Amino acid sequence: MDVLITGGAGFLGTRLAKALLARGTLAGPDGRQQPISTLTLLDLAAPAAIDDPRVRVVTGDISDPAVIRSALTADTASVFHLAAVVSGQAEADFELGMRINFDATRLILDCAREHGKRPRVVFTSSVAVFGGPLPQQVKDSTVATPQSSYGAQKLMGEILVTDYSRKGFIDGRTLRMPTICVRPGVPNKAASSFASGIIREPLNDQPAVCPVAPETPMWVMSPRKAIEGLIHGHEIDGERLGATRTLNMPGLATTVRDMVGALEKVAGANVVARIRWEPDAAVIRIVNSWPGNFDAARAAALGFAADPDFESIVRAHVQDELGR
Amino acid sequence: MDVLITGGAGFLGTRLAKALLARGTLAGPDGRQQPISTLTLLDLAAPAAIDDPRVRVVTGDISDPAVIRSALTADTASVFHLAAVVSGQAEADFELGMRINFDATRLILDCAREHGKRPRVVFTSSVAVFGGPLPQQVKDSTVATPQSSYGAQKLMGEILVTDYSRKGFIDGRTLRMPTICVRPGVPNKAASSFASGIIREPLNDQPAVCPVAPETPMWVMSPRKAIEGLIHGHEIDGERLGATRTLNMPGLATTVRDMVGALEKVAGANVVARIRWEPDAAVIRIVNSWPGNFDAARAAALGFAADPDFESIVRAHVQDELGR
Repeated sequence: MDVLITGGAGFLGTRLAKALLARGTLAGPDGRQQPISTLTLLDLAAPAAIDDPRVRVVTGDISDPAVIRSALTADTASVFHLAAVVSGQAEADFELGMRINFDATRLILDCAREHGKRPRVVFTSSVAVFGGPLPQQVKDSTVATPQSSYGAQKLMGEILVTDYSRKGFIDGRTLRMPTICVRPGVPNKAASSFASGIIREPLNDQPAVCPVAPETPMWVMSPRKAIEGLIHGHEIDGERLGATRTLNMPGLATTVRDMVGALEKVAGANVVARIRWEPDAAVIRIVNSWPGNFDAARAAALGFAADPDFESIVRAHVQDELGR
Repeated sequence: MDVLITGGAGFLGTRLAKALLARGTLAGPDGRQQPISTLTLLDLAAPAAIDDPRVRVVTGDISDPAVIRSALTADTASVFHLAAVVSGQAEADFELGMRINFDATRLILDCAREHGKRPRVVFTSSVAVFGGPLPQQVKDSTVATPQSSYGAQKLMGEILVTDYSRKGFIDGRTLRMPTICVRPGVPNKAASSFASGIIREPLNDQPAVCPVAPETPMWVMSPRKAIEGLIHGHEIDGERLGATRTLNMPGLATTVRDMVGALEKVAGANVVARIRWEPDAAVIRIVNSWPGNFDAARAAALGFAADPDFESIVRAHVQDELGR
């Protein structure tokens, strides 16, 4: 079977690609495991080379219909749609956010619809679809009221995935991801970028800036659990999802203070001392609009799992990215 | 001030136009009443002539950017966006529904954004954004889970109106309208078309078909209350709406049986005898996915009003449309 990952050169896309290649199979249209014959990685730039004959690389802008058509063919049985413009960037450049986060999602779904093969589509949404006055704990029945254009664009994408699934154009499932941390690499324009930065940079002997208060609640998920979740989300039988194609993913409810505390436990006080606390009103506004705690009962019942604590997230990062 | 009505040749658009011309003023950007100098009616075809020098007619497809640009100018202070493809048609022709119900809405909002004058935009949505397993009474806090493409497209439009308002591009307000009845004219492809037909046709000595069961719950609003609601929705200060730009409109909770009972009370048993009961599975599926009862607390607190009973709706129809 042919599998497509959009955002295939990104951090999650690359990890997912490696996990899928190692795994070797995915549920096919009939639910039975089938070998992955082609894994197409689509992104603006080519990913770091993965030495595997099954990998096909397509580079281009995902809002260009020709690019989508070359990446998503009549043979594509599964799509992991991860590509997006991050929250801070979508807020700063409204048109770019609409084009990449919404229009490209629609292009992908329309391309799948035109092929008529009803592929499984795993769409990554975000806790950023929630905002404003929220209950202490967000439930599966809580209305999504985004307070950022990123959240609004993701929410519209969710609605498309659900309606295209209802119409039988695709077999979609949307996963509302917690803040993924610790991300490797360099800071990006996501409002949540600091959540990885305050752990990653100090561990690399670099200074880090924390733009929010220590008591800020965070709903987080490790890269390991995110990859597990994406694959599990693909494997679930669409019949079990029924009409409700959107799932709040389980995460870990923590605070910035607890995250820094876990870092200190793993790496010591001198590492934590590299964090400077410099409030940034724009970041605070967006991050504080996100919920810090969920009762993700439906996803838990469907077999999705959260990280047990933040210390294990820090230790996994040290192991996976720093090799120690 | 310049005012635009999309769907201006339609039944509600024409009624709204007459009501606005009679009223003569609307709240301007500063909240104070200003005389309506130009009332632009945009629709596929020209409306029945309204003899008033303030009326400007623009005909064309609302999904054509050139048509929108000629109708919505830098002088447009208020937009009533009523134009839509109805539910049954949007379900049968997915692309048409996306183009008219969603893309055209976005074009209107983008045109307003480009002018940079932050007009008031009243967007008509629908109870069709709800569907599937629902509580006995839908509340303002109930998640919208559309089970039709029409509902999905309206819901995405709502999200745009809210985000464009948050960004300061427009001063938007979305009204989720109950089933409007009794509509004059001829049946259309709305799944709810029967709700008007079973009253209107018998009163015109014509046979009518009722495709749903007598016990089917309906959430309805008369044309009079709909026009009042649209104008009231325009007049409310955006500050009072805050971040929550979507309102469930108050309606009348009734059943098809009670509607027919009211018709009998007003017009007699021989009129009611013109209704044939012929179940239609496609209509039943869509109509039964809509909620029949709401607690529209927020809209009620903001001063919107519902009809008191169905008999008064039938009597108003007889008065307004049959002149007796």
